[in-house]
Amino acid sequence: MTKTKPAFKPTQIARAGLSKIIEPNDPTGSALVAIAGPIEAYRIITTYTGTTPPTEQQQVSEFLDDTETPRADRKLDAGLERWKARAALADPAHDLDTMALLGGGMLTPEDEEWPEQFDALGPAAPLALWWRGNGNVGILSHPERLLAVVGSRDATEYGRQVTSDIVSGVVGRGITVLSGGAYGIDACAHAAALDAGRLGVEDGVPAFPPTIAVMAGGLDRYYPEGNTELLRSIQRAALIIAEVAPGTTPTRWRFLARNRVIAALCAGTLVTEARWRSGALSTARHAAGIGRELGAVPGSIYSANSAGCHRLLREAAAIPVTDAAEALELIKVSAPATSGGTADEDIRDYDGLNVQDLLLLDALPNNRPRSPDELAATAGLGIGAVLGGLSRLAGRGLARSTGEAWSRAYPG
Amino acid sequence: MTKTKPAFKPTQIARAGLSKIIEPNDPTGSALVAIAGPIEAYRIITTYTGTTPPTEQQQVSEFLDDTETPRADRKLDAGLERWKARAALADPAHDLDTMALLGGGMLTPEDEEWPEQFDALGPAAPLALWWRGNGNVGILSHPERLLAVVGSRDATEYGRQVTSDIVSGVVGRGITVLSGGAYGIDACAHAAALDAGRLGVEDGVPAFPPTIAVMAGGLDRYYPEGNTELLRSIQRAALIIAEVAPGTTPTRWRFLARNRVIAALCAGTLVTEARWRSGALSTARHAAGIGRELGAVPGSIYSANSAGCHRLLREAAAIPVTDAAEALELIKVSAPATSGGTADEDIRDYDGLNVQDLLLLDALPNNRPRSPDELAATAGLGIGAVLGGLSRLAGRGLARSTGEAWSRAYPG
Repeated sequence: MTKTKPAFKPTQIARAGLSKIIEPNDPTGSALVAIAGPIEAYRIITTYTGTTPPTEQQQVSEFLDDTETPRADRKLDAGLERWKARAALADPAHDLDTMALLGGGMLTPEDEEWPEQFDALGPAAPLALWWRGNGNVGILSHPERLLAVVGSRDATEYGRQVTSDIVSGVVGRGITVLSGGAYGIDACAHAAALDAGRLGVEDGVPAFPPTIAVMAGGLDRYYPEGNTELLRSIQRAALIIAEVAPGTTPTRWRFLARNRVIAALCAGTLVTEARWRSGALSTARHAAGIGRELGAVPGSIYSANSAGCHRLLREAAAIPVTDAAEALELIKVSAPATSGGTADEDIRDYDGLNVQDLLLLDALPNNRPRSPDELAATAGLGIGAVLGGLSRLAGRGLARSTGEAWSRAYPG
Repeated sequence: MTKTKPAFKPTQIARAGLSKIIEPNDPTGSALVAIAGPIEAYRIITTYTGTTPPTEQQQVSEFLDDTETPRADRKLDAGLERWKARAALADPAHDLDTMALLGGGMLTPEDEEWPEQFDALGPAAPLALWWRGNGNVGILSHPERLLAVVGSRDATEYGRQVTSDIVSGVVGRGITVLSGGAYGIDACAHAAALDAGRLGVEDGVPAFPPTIAVMAGGLDRYYPEGNTELLRSIQRAALIIAEVAPGTTPTRWRFLARNRVIAALCAGTLVTEARWRSGALSTARHAAGIGRELGAVPGSIYSANSAGCHRLLREAAAIPVTDAAEALELIKVSAPATSGGTADEDIRDYDGLNVQDLLLLDALPNNRPRSPDELAATAGLGIGAVLGGLSRLAGRGLARSTGEAWSRAYPG
């Protein structure tokens, strides 16, 4: 059986290659692409034999001088040296073919569907975004419909319950939940979103992608291996995405870099359960750093698994989130009010009384009724205020008279 | 046996009487005292027979025109009418005698020990402060040594544990814990403070009052009755205080007014467990309203008893507090760092490595060692960076060489 190869545009070829050669979040690479354009940048990198073009060397340095980039990373020659070995092995057309065969593709800044919210990352923006699955990639450019839900890998029962409850409610309101595909809270968030998404399925395909897994490695492999079934389900019902090309292994660096992609795509990030030094906190700090909304779910102060959430509430001004409605508020989606309404301890039934009537209410005896004069002395009110107040309280069922004397009554 | 009656100053007599006649937080009464002084104010109120002195009527109205006082409360004649019945019954010398017999006394703004932090309440400041016990009342004018710890009356096991742990740590650092003497969290805070205070006892008397109960009624009675033993213990080891005179019953109004006294006295208020509409939230809002520090302890989002704390974190910008050290920070007392330090998930052992060394670390295989050239391609680094990085990682015990080839090592 012969397959017709899709025709790829030169910018696609170039960016596919660049996303294979240049590490995520490499400012030197981003600067070269910004200055020379992707096609010329790819040509310079792949034809490098030891001589750095002086114009671009100068321009890259100037481009990065205004940023907080470390001085060593402002030098194109060091970058070209760094990229040399990988450039020799790059085969972007093959990678694009592979991804098409796997039922995916690649978005670039030249595409209309490119998520403009990546602009917030400045020179740290991804060079391309690979995707795979059945979901509509157009959702990625709608941050207001995307909520990141992340947390620690060793989730407690509490963390799983919290994550599951909040994600179900959020997806039920048409919001897509992004996470990192890791064990623990991430997996729990994806699974709950898939479950909630199934409720709105037509012909096997949900009306919108209920969840998107943002991977640290290439989309030709599922990682971590223990989440293979889950990630396959996400890919079938929705989307998995990555900024790195197929064949790229997930590394510590790429995990950390991946977190900025999650944070930048979503209008808000919610940490449902995290340890004091969880990787989820890096996603949270990225989100806060680029002005995205940040929420954290409180928990027991004795749970080490909630210590990271409490740290975010204290140090990063995260907003405490206790249910799905408050999670939706993070990304400005209004939900029917659900909070509160539990029994009032101190002022139940008495809201709306003025101060003098409240004083009078306090003075009313349960037994042995008192005259208005006695009530005036007890309550410290004038006789006029007492007489007026008694009639108001009686109207609310809070006072009753026996002849001239009055006592407390209880409505209902 | 004859007892020599203590001689009371005229301002004491006057203020003792005023604190019996005028309800707490009555702006008309405060205005009259501010304008005429306590002695003349007491004379005007106790000699009132239906004719309001026109000068004071005018002055009280002008005094309150600049405040947010409701218009009806700016009229002295209404106040005099309100106070008439109680004024006829007032016997301040007797009340002062009673309190002296009970082992207490009364502070007034004329005393050096008067808590100047009441100034923050403006015209809502107490007219006097009754006390009873063995503690040094001088502590009351040191807000930086006073922390309010309050909460709901129906405490959970979690709330009790939290309150007890935090209070013990705070008192152990020489801080006095104020609370309202109520059931639940208040009682738990007082009890834990007494326990912690016993550790620093000399000759049966703690070095400082570990706890102070701020009562809503007169100090001649213990209220609520179920807390009699506890309140008696507080009175013996420390202090109980109230702005109302002996013989005054606690009423709903006085409970609400009492909360402002707790909030104003302390540099910070901590709510350890509270329901959505707990009275503790009124104390918290008073504290925030006059610029005192406000903290709240997080808990399970499924516990209705923590809903009030979460509400304060969301709506009142309360600072989350998870241990005694963070509670001490509220009132700017530094404590030895205790937080954090739990295991790191993502970056344990790798803090301090630069980006290139981190990339190199990721590229090092556990088995099958690789040559520097292979590592350069895998890590996307130049050969110089690889060689330098390998020697740095080896120095940290993170890499080891087998001939020319390198693999991952683990320190320790």
